[in-house]
Amino acid sequence: MQQWKAIRECRAYTELQRCAENLPDLTDTAVLTSERIAHYVCTGPEFQLLYGCQHINEEILDHFQEIADESRLVEQFRQMRRGAVLNKIEGYPSEERQVLHTSCRDIFSTQPASPTQTEQGKVELQKLKEFLQEVENGTLRGSSGETFTTLVHVGIGGSDLGPRSIYEALRAYRIGGRTVHFIANVDPDDAADVLQGLDLSRTLVAVVSKSGTTLETLSNETLVRQALKDAGLDPAAHCLAVTGESSPMDNPEHYLRSFYMYDYIGGRFSSTSVVGTVMLGFALGYSRVESFLKGAVRMDEAAEEGDVRKNLPLLLALLGVWNHTLLQKPTVAVLPYSQALHRFTAHLQQCDMESNGKSVQRNGEPLQGQSGPVVWGEPGTNGQHAFYQLLHQGTEEVAVEFIGFRRSQYGRDMVIRETTSQQKLVANLLAQSLALVSGKDDENPNKRFAGNRSNSVLMGDCLTPESMGALLALYEAKIVFQGFCWNVNSFDQEGVQLGKVLAGQFLSAMVEKKVENSVTGAFLQSAGIA
Amino acid sequence: MQQWKAIRECRAYTELQRCAENLPDLTDTAVLTSERIAHYVCTGPEFQLLYGCQHINEEILDHFQEIADESRLVEQFRQMRRGAVLNKIEGYPSEERQVLHTSCRDIFSTQPASPTQTEQGKVELQKLKEFLQEVENGTLRGSSGETFTTLVHVGIGGSDLGPRSIYEALRAYRIGGRTVHFIANVDPDDAADVLQGLDLSRTLVAVVSKSGTTLETLSNETLVRQALKDAGLDPAAHCLAVTGESSPMDNPEHYLRSFYMYDYIGGRFSSTSVVGTVMLGFALGYSRVESFLKGAVRMDEAAEEGDVRKNLPLLLALLGVWNHTLLQKPTVAVLPYSQALHRFTAHLQQCDMESNGKSVQRNGEPLQGQSGPVVWGEPGTNGQHAFYQLLHQGTEEVAVEFIGFRRSQYGRDMVIRETTSQQKLVANLLAQSLALVSGKDDENPNKRFAGNRSNSVLMGDCLTPESMGALLALYEAKIVFQGFCWNVNSFDQEGVQLGKVLAGQFLSAMVEKKVENSVTGAFLQSAGIA
Repeated sequence: MQQWKAIRECRAYTELQRCAENLPDLTDTAVLTSERIAHYVCTGPEFQLLYGCQHINEEILDHFQEIADESRLVEQFRQMRRGAVLNKIEGYPSEERQVLHTSCRDIFSTQPASPTQTEQGKVELQKLKEFLQEVENGTLRGSSGETFTTLVHVGIGGSDLGPRSIYEALRAYRIGGRTVHFIANVDPDDAADVLQGLDLSRTLVAVVSKSGTTLETLSNETLVRQALKDAGLDPAAHCLAVTGESSPMDNPEHYLRSFYMYDYIGGRFSSTSVVGTVMLGFALGYSRVESFLKGAVRMDEAAEEGDVRKNLPLLLALLGVWNHTLLQKPTVAVLPYSQALHRFTAHLQQCDMESNGKSVQRNGEPLQGQSGPVVWGEPGTNGQHAFYQLLHQGTEEVAVEFIGFRRSQYGRDMVIRETTSQQKLVANLLAQSLALVSGKDDENPNKRFAGNRSNSVLMGDCLTPESMGALLALYEAKIVFQGFCWNVNSFDQEGVQLGKVLAGQFLSAMVEKKVENSVTGAFLQSAGIA
Repeated sequence: MQQWKAIRECRAYTELQRCAENLPDLTDTAVLTSERIAHYVCTGPEFQLLYGCQHINEEILDHFQEIADESRLVEQFRQMRRGAVLNKIEGYPSEERQVLHTSCRDIFSTQPASPTQTEQGKVELQKLKEFLQEVENGTLRGSSGETFTTLVHVGIGGSDLGPRSIYEALRAYRIGGRTVHFIANVDPDDAADVLQGLDLSRTLVAVVSKSGTTLETLSNETLVRQALKDAGLDPAAHCLAVTGESSPMDNPEHYLRSFYMYDYIGGRFSSTSVVGTVMLGFALGYSRVESFLKGAVRMDEAAEEGDVRKNLPLLLALLGVWNHTLLQKPTVAVLPYSQALHRFTAHLQQCDMESNGKSVQRNGEPLQGQSGPVVWGEPGTNGQHAFYQLLHQGTEEVAVEFIGFRRSQYGRDMVIRETTSQQKLVANLLAQSLALVSGKDDENPNKRFAGNRSNSVLMGDCLTPESMGALLALYEAKIVFQGFCWNVNSFDQEGVQLGKVLAGQFLSAMVEKKVENSVTGAFLQSAGIA
């Protein structure tokens, strides 16, 4: 069987360890020059990465290249896009699946990387296009004859965070009058809060679960169907199934339409499948869905470039590994200077931590050293007035990734004290990047900034459907590359199983109303349940 | 001058270091017994802390007590509530202020801890009560004669995150028809997104800035005032000033009313001052504001208990220090099993990291060792389908604090497969707590759970205005106690200054449209600005 090499087994890894002991001093103005900042720029689809404020130099980048070559990182990515069974653990029972979230956006080429799966994706997109036309022209209406203006998206985890963050990012491009709401949590207050105030007669409900058996989603679907019935409506005329073909949810008696997801697309990588596109098509219209997919596939293609200095996703991945594994920063803060991206970091948190929060290598052996970091963050400038204090003067070292755009989405801006709000936003982004590395001395120790807190800035022109697709695919590819580096299977999630089993036991105890003479019984009693 | 002792200078600290080498094995069912879980429960106002799943035992708790006594943690808290000037660095210029966020809720006692400041708080509350009556009975209306149904809260950082998270937490208790929106980011798309679709003729605008000079807030205020004018309305009849007395914003020509905040209340601790109560009073009505304050002051009083086993905020604080400083977990995840608390962790992230992300002791000397952790988190059960993979099987050790409630807010729930959604929610919370510590062996290495990932569960009955006040004050006190432990000034934020200065330089360069032969010039050029 194919065995891949973790980066720590590569020759250049020990070279990088040596480099980590002798980093360029970015507080030195002879080091952090204009030339340096202008030099360390990597251009990819829709974005440029400014990484002169990272602790790198040409030697370190050369070692990045050696590692990429020896671990065959790009080759693995190419194989992934072409249908290799990468979701597996050698020698043990595992999911044994292909990893083809890239296939459902590879729809613009006459020679897609994975033709069969792309064809399946195109079938669903055609179904979606026709469905949206019927909604638009009013041939499809709710059971009381009203046209649809609202969609409630019911899912959780991978069926929620990606679509939700993309919807928030692209609200500015909505079809007039259309809104989308999301219900995810099994907490009944989540559904209650969303449902109050909705005109259900004009509401579509997209229920999203690949297996058709997700506990939270089915519970929330039941709450929503009851609300539809209470409003005198026929749930089957309002509900869409976004699910696996032949799942328990794939049933025309209960759903207006079924849109299919396939087991070669993992939940957290499913935003460009029907998991995201049904909701997005309703909100923005079909042509903007295509723009979104276009941005994503452009980034996938860019990830197949062999030169690390020219491969934006690979470079972002290697800089992350450098900061986490070599420079030992346990967390990475992703800080978008765009309010529309206010949920994007939450999506990345899932996509990254569920993919690379692992302890076993792909060959079944225990991991040597670390796998993925904790990912967190909030938009700037808000964060500047919040947790940036710790970034600048705290004792925890954080890897920082800024994201910014030159133009606003709405274009509703004003010159106030000689500059626009957008100019203030970008100025603040760049100022933070520079402040973190340059530092500042002061007679007052409380006003000192140590500096050398490395970071990078990802700049785009404007957050549009196409650049959002590119941004999503950039981070997906980053996460995949990092999994290759640490030699973990980024595509399973065995770590969520134990909690599910124990929750089931607790629920059984609740149903039987018995307090067992056991840990669980006592725990429940203590929690005031029994 | 008064010199306080950091815990690492305490005799018991070395004992704790020894204990950290020999932790109880919580995967051992002879250790993690029903009796243990039932024993390690601390009851405070509105909440119980279940901490049997922490790596503690009686010896460790005894050392907690010794440390609390030797560092005089409770004595410092008592002095804080009574007006000690704790916001300072000895021997260097610093803010030299009292820390009296507790005073504005200490309104129910005939003998408040800090009478002068409580009296000032009561004056503002009386003004608020009368104002709300005028809104309610329609004597106060917008400039076109409409009654007010909507409030836009414009602030950032401490003037935004606390109020926003509390509003989200208590939406279920709103006066019918009333809604609140928030604008914070200098990103012009934030204001544009909020303003579109609002009926401005029915909208109050609360502009919140203590200094009256916050860049983001004034920019957004200008955008909102322009929108009011464009709608043919008089901004002065719609805007409220929440600001310091005599600040540039304290001007009746431009604002309908002024509500005052005082310099003895820091922004991130200001949610129970007019910063939070003006918004909350509009949304929920005055009596629920009083309930909210009541919950907070009950927790403040509980924080003055000398026995660490009975002092909920102090115990939570010491468990946090134990996990961070002794057991070396760089981050803490706060995971509320309540969708209504979906922004609470973001507030804590600010309050905690801005307070304790420091490198200098209160005596001006460099900090030995670490100060505060990175704080992050998302609500469960959503997080279970996202980043919990890393909590269970990743290589990063995370301190975990669960929060849960026995009852839902809306009470709109259904029995589905024999249990309600609320039961499913609580069962999942407890299952996760137990799964993290108990672990599980398996023949398949990918299905193994190491266990011993310690955590605690904070249980309340229901999230109400009173319990929300208690929860807020609990975490405020935790943060304050931890600052005392690390001997940092938790009440200043010098670390945010350098970025502000550099942003100003960048903006000047933009205005002058010159590209300097300098780092800033090159940076701007590279970012596509120049």
